Amino acid sequence: MSKSIANPELPAPPSGKYPAKAHARRVAKWIAEHGGPTSGVIYLDGQTAWDAEKVVLLRQRRHFYYLTGCDLPDCSFAYEIDDDKSTLWIPPVDPEVVMWAGMPLLKQQAMERFDVDEVFTRDELKSGESLSRMLGKQQSDVMVIEDRVDLSVFDKPIVKEQQKPKIGFSWARKAIEACRVVKDDHEIAMIRHANAVSSYAHEQVLASVKQAKNERELNAVFVMHCHANGCREQAYGCICASGTNASTLHYVHNDMPLTGRLNLLLDAGCEWQCYCSDITRTFPLHGKFTKESREIYELVLLMQSSCMKMIRAGVLWEDVHMKAHTVAAEGLRQLGIFHSHLNTQDILDSHITTRFFPHGLGHYLGMDTHDTGGNANYEDPNPFFAYLRVRGTLPGGAVITNEPGIYFRQFPLEQELKDGMWKGVIDEEVLKRYWDVGGVRIEDDILVKEGGYENLTTVKSDVDFIEAAVVGSG
Amino acid sequence: MSKSIANPELPAPPSGKYPAKAHARRVAKWIAEHGGPTSGVIYLDGQTAWDAEKVVLLRQRRHFYYLTGCDLPDCSFAYEIDDDKSTLWIPPVDPEVVMWAGMPLLKQQAMERFDVDEVFTRDELKSGESLSRMLGKQQSDVMVIEDRVDLSVFDKPIVKEQQKPKIGFSWARKAIEACRVVKDDHEIAMIRHANAVSSYAHEQVLASVKQAKNERELNAVFVMHCHANGCREQAYGCICASGTNASTLHYVHNDMPLTGRLNLLLDAGCEWQCYCSDITRTFPLHGKFTKESREIYELVLLMQSSCMKMIRAGVLWEDVHMKAHTVAAEGLRQLGIFHSHLNTQDILDSHITTRFFPHGLGHYLGMDTHDTGGNANYEDPNPFFAYLRVRGTLPGGAVITNEPGIYFRQFPLEQELKDGMWKGVIDEEVLKRYWDVGGVRIEDDILVKEGGYENLTTVKSDVDFIEAAVVGSG
Repeated sequence: MSKSIANPELPAPPSGKYPAKAHARRVAKWIAEHGGPTSGVIYLDGQTAWDAEKVVLLRQRRHFYYLTGCDLPDCSFAYEIDDDKSTLWIPPVDPEVVMWAGMPLLKQQAMERFDVDEVFTRDELKSGESLSRMLGKQQSDVMVIEDRVDLSVFDKPIVKEQQKPKIGFSWARKAIEACRVVKDDHEIAMIRHANAVSSYAHEQVLASVKQAKNERELNAVFVMHCHANGCREQAYGCICASGTNASTLHYVHNDMPLTGRLNLLLDAGCEWQCYCSDITRTFPLHGKFTKESREIYELVLLMQSSCMKMIRAGVLWEDVHMKAHTVAAEGLRQLGIFHSHLNTQDILDSHITTRFFPHGLGHYLGMDTHDTGGNANYEDPNPFFAYLRVRGTLPGGAVITNEPGIYFRQFPLEQELKDGMWKGVIDEEVLKRYWDVGGVRIEDDILVKEGGYENLTTVKSDVDFIEAAVVGSG
Repeated sequence: MSKSIANPELPAPPSGKYPAKAHARRVAKWIAEHGGPTSGVIYLDGQTAWDAEKVVLLRQRRHFYYLTGCDLPDCSFAYEIDDDKSTLWIPPVDPEVVMWAGMPLLKQQAMERFDVDEVFTRDELKSGESLSRMLGKQQSDVMVIEDRVDLSVFDKPIVKEQQKPKIGFSWARKAIEACRVVKDDHEIAMIRHANAVSSYAHEQVLASVKQAKNERELNAVFVMHCHANGCREQAYGCICASGTNASTLHYVHNDMPLTGRLNLLLDAGCEWQCYCSDITRTFPLHGKFTKESREIYELVLLMQSSCMKMIRAGVLWEDVHMKAHTVAAEGLRQLGIFHSHLNTQDILDSHITTRFFPHGLGHYLGMDTHDTGGNANYEDPNPFFAYLRVRGTLPGGAVITNEPGIYFRQFPLEQELKDGMWKGVIDEEVLKRYWDVGGVRIEDDILVKEGGYENLTTVKSDVDFIEAAVVGSG
């Protein structure tokens, strides 16, 4: 009885059309409510065709996908606000292309697949007729995204009574980026599915640890299981970091032997039809955490669970982020890494926890791994907040990562210790025992709800599960 | 005893430095021999850093790699022809970057890794000093590639006696592209290694067929084994096409169930440090070719072996390509798809074989899958040659693919048959039996030598091997 490559027991992906029309309405409403035009046309171009010579696959423009659900290259889109009507232009049938790439999607098929009111080919866009009808009627604003639209199509329209359209760059991007923060049920189902596939792939990595001799093998196993189960694209460059490599936050080499390393940090997530997952697990390569690794792992788990309890619509993300620092401060003091005579406020006031937990607690997640919204302020002089990608209160329906970590980073800590910067704060004798831990991060994708949250990530993270999974691997 | 993920028995990759200096000398020599400047500076910029937000990994510019062997982003390079001296500028140590990405390569490490005479940081390039020394001395041509160099660095040089350099766009690209056609031993070893890894991955796909239910699973298995064995990048978008999907030459969906399909065509190859492999195998999904599939498979094998015998330095590629058409013409007549009263010349004169074998026999292979050189003429009115990517005689040291195929393509053949276009040529009753075969292509990577060739692809393609591999899978 041979095992199958894909897992037939994974949940089915969401069915039904992507709710593009509802998104268009929402964007128009947002513009009107924020002082923008109350009529006119929102007009977008999608990504141009992939270039076979450059071997770069198409990544649909996210703003375009949001209003169309269309992943084809070389398309354009318009939404007429007054008539509540959406139009999609798709590539025409070109015999030369058909010979190499097969038949393209036809107009009728596009009508069935996408949530739009009318479909034309790009030939018809270029001839100007479909656009003329639209602009002749509206005689008003055309809202586009700067540098993302071929404006020459507006030179052509042929209806005589038409006025030259007024092209505006102020609204389309801003409105779409604002609307994308709060996800609807269909979008949540897509992120949930990306999480189901990525969670399964994380489990398969855990089940393969004993067979692996190099970081890249576990990276490859992760990507394989995502791909085999329908998620060909990774949401971001995987971080597969063994031992002290995990203290490099954006480690991307993923190519070092595992010999002599304690733990492995795997930060990896796939996309499901443009929607991302983003998951980190850290595990002991030999099946059992060392005393120090387990202490740090459980501290990070506690940071995560303490923050998790606070997540609900309306919570201030800075407060949640500071909760993680507070738990870290107390935990590292209990371990003796910080001197026991210090109280939590002393520790926080020294900013020392930013050396062990330097990044933000989380970021919005959606069609981009670091999704729109968030209003980060990378110039914030407050060292706790300079790398925090989300500021302010969380709305219900947002999806945000909860990803605390503790890292033992030689840079800049070793030099600072030499310079005496942390005298009276850090006990260097105790710290010494922890360098080999490298870094621990635990990351789940969280749906923000009224009065609470839902964890969309299904791979478990408790110590017993993690250790048993590695022990049982091979 | 658990199996390992990577294959420890694969040959080791080539060792030693990439021969960048020899390439620079060769390019300078080519320029001088073709009427260009005999002194001056060749100056190139590499690719800029990958953009974490866009999730696009760095793909080093090939012309830059050829003269440096350097895969880092944000580097620049100069070769001073008179002094036979090469200089590489690398990114400086930036504490903010170190925090996220770890320590960059230092100057001394770059000197050890790359075949260049001197290394500076880009700070030093921007300050103008290193460049000034160079230009003050040379007072002559600076040869760059248009739109691929930040020319503002030439505004800054500070040596007083220096003349404004004369920037030239005519030579650098042309010379590098010409030189890249003929590979040296190190480059051949790199292509050989990419072939060893890809060949092994093809074997692993064959060994997994019975476990697969969808094209994407076999695609995923291929990518996994390349990656686990050190080749993270694919050289091009894989074509994994079951049944009639294989008649779409550039099929890229790779996402259809295998149920009810006869054969699978897998066109896939990985990169080893910027050097490509490009291999196609076609196999029966149920372990045994049907009568018709086997007939077509053996015909394509015969096309390939007949062409292979002709490959040597100096052969005219058009002749080899036409040999494939001649063998196809005879073979399809013997099968009864073409009427038996026709002779080979009649068949060729009708151009009917371009319907079954529409693409060129092969292309150069190197740092690009479709490598530089070749002098294709896509406007050639001769239908046999319009898609042939290499024209003229092959030099020794070139690597070229030998990839004949026979496809049963509904477009445009069905309409043409209806229109009576192939009356007296095609026997439609016989043809009918072959539609399900879909398409067969067999592709190997061939080193052109004086008096012969070497096949760098090691996965076998004879019927017995292919069938036994699938039968033994699971």
